[in-house]
Amino acid sequence: MTATLKDALGEVAAAVDRQFDLLLAVPQDPRADLYHAMRHAAIGGGKRLRPLLTFATADLFGVDRTVTARVATAIEAIHVYSLIHDDLPAMDDDDMRRGKPTVHKVYGESTAILAGDCLHALAFEWLAEPEAHPDPFVRVELIGCLAASSGPSGMAGGQMMDLEAEKTSFDLATVTRLQAMKTGALIACAVEAGAILGRVPPEGRRPLRGYARDIGLAFQIADDILDVEGDEALAGKALRKDEAAGKETFLTLLGLDRAREQTAMLVDQAIDHLRGYGPEADLLREIARYITERDR
Amino acid sequence: MTATLKDALGEVAAAVDRQFDLLLAVPQDPRADLYHAMRHAAIGGGKRLRPLLTFATADLFGVDRTVTARVATAIEAIHVYSLIHDDLPAMDDDDMRRGKPTVHKVYGESTAILAGDCLHALAFEWLAEPEAHPDPFVRVELIGCLAASSGPSGMAGGQMMDLEAEKTSFDLATVTRLQAMKTGALIACAVEAGAILGRVPPEGRRPLRGYARDIGLAFQIADDILDVEGDEALAGKALRKDEAAGKETFLTLLGLDRAREQTAMLVDQAIDHLRGYGPEADLLREIARYITERDR
Repeated sequence: MTATLKDALGEVAAAVDRQFDLLLAVPQDPRADLYHAMRHAAIGGGKRLRPLLTFATADLFGVDRTVTARVATAIEAIHVYSLIHDDLPAMDDDDMRRGKPTVHKVYGESTAILAGDCLHALAFEWLAEPEAHPDPFVRVELIGCLAASSGPSGMAGGQMMDLEAEKTSFDLATVTRLQAMKTGALIACAVEAGAILGRVPPEGRRPLRGYARDIGLAFQIADDILDVEGDEALAGKALRKDEAAGKETFLTLLGLDRAREQTAMLVDQAIDHLRGYGPEADLLREIARYITERDR
Repeated sequence: MTATLKDALGEVAAAVDRQFDLLLAVPQDPRADLYHAMRHAAIGGGKRLRPLLTFATADLFGVDRTVTARVATAIEAIHVYSLIHDDLPAMDDDDMRRGKPTVHKVYGESTAILAGDCLHALAFEWLAEPEAHPDPFVRVELIGCLAASSGPSGMAGGQMMDLEAEKTSFDLATVTRLQAMKTGALIACAVEAGAILGRVPPEGRRPLRGYARDIGLAFQIADDILDVEGDEALAGKALRKDEAAGKETFLTLLGLDRAREQTAMLVDQAIDHLRGYGPEADLLREIARYITERDR
């Protein structure tokens, strides 16, 4: 990791934590535990890859970083809500996340379900407010992008396919589609949000969309490799669960060598999509390289 | 129930079912069960009180009913998602809803969680699309209203307080606040959405907001009475659960006679808020009266 990327990750993580801290102030009433549960999941954890992508893209177009911070936090709230629900006993049944016990382990299942639901609603509430952006057209475009990338055609639909993957043996095309939905869609939205804030018209977003698609897929293949080769203490969560569940992954379908080649190819391709941009896109290029190196 | 109200309920129920049927078309891929689960919960059940309120309010201002149908369906989608999650074993653990087995009973818990999450995201996706309303300012205002009324300051926050109610003994003020959040906020949003579609500026919405607040509370007190006096077969769900859980309700705090008086008083007050409107608001008046008579 370069010093520039390390600094950017630190700055973005601090900005997102600050936003969550302000927006999730604990009320002195019977909802206190609900807010503690949201804060437990949202504050002080994760690499903040999605907010980093929104900042790096919005910075290309000189967007006010106060505006970017709120939008990036709303996108991260959707990611955090999905982690809370995915970790539930009825879903992936995980005890550890980001090196801490999962929300339902600390606060109980009912509070975990509601904490996820609340972060889900808050993401849209935060984007609908004028503080997110003075132009309602920009706000509604951000909301549309986030809702589409997190619903049944995006993240939640991918999670449903992932649950089915334990029962059926998917081929490479289906696993690719599953992952494009489950993790790719929200990563793509994080990049798209930067372009929306930068007032780039849809037809001008093509290179950025290509970049986002390629890093999203590279990220997932790297995740599958990490799941087999990684260290649980470093990852902060249980690994090797796909194998135990008998699921097809990029690794079972491609083998380790081809999976590594594929990741490297996708990173090159992602960077190539940015050829129209100068040094101002170097952070996006570094993120693409970093994605295959991370230990998350 | 008058013939006018009965016709309106029938028309609105048909319009909402038609919208859900179109918007939740089942894809031929591993997500099929997810869509079947959403359709099971969303189509062909419930009195559609919230959509009825949106239609009755929007009709006051001559809003195009095609536009109203989509907005009313988005609001109902939030209500349906909350029912799916509330019924989960970790929450209220209910087997029956609207006379049918609950979603997790038919499709399993993980699919039920995801079906709720998907309806939640879809509500905002449907409102963000230009089909919801040509003016982005109207769309973003609808989204803000719906997100605020369903998140931690509204429905989900009220549900959290309701879970706490099993552990603590709440007083009348706290139970009133709990119910204003848990059911009142979304009912208020259903009325407000009609006013937003009708381009009524916020200061002009005061009478409608007063009306909504009063019928929301009356609805909840009537629900508490129904929970004690009702017939499970007619209600289509398990009753007398509050008593079993030792929760304070309007009935335990006020007693049956005062609860009945309070409901009647709130209905009169709700209707009085509409004094500035002529016969065009008769449907809203009938809804107020009906709320205390329903068997739901």
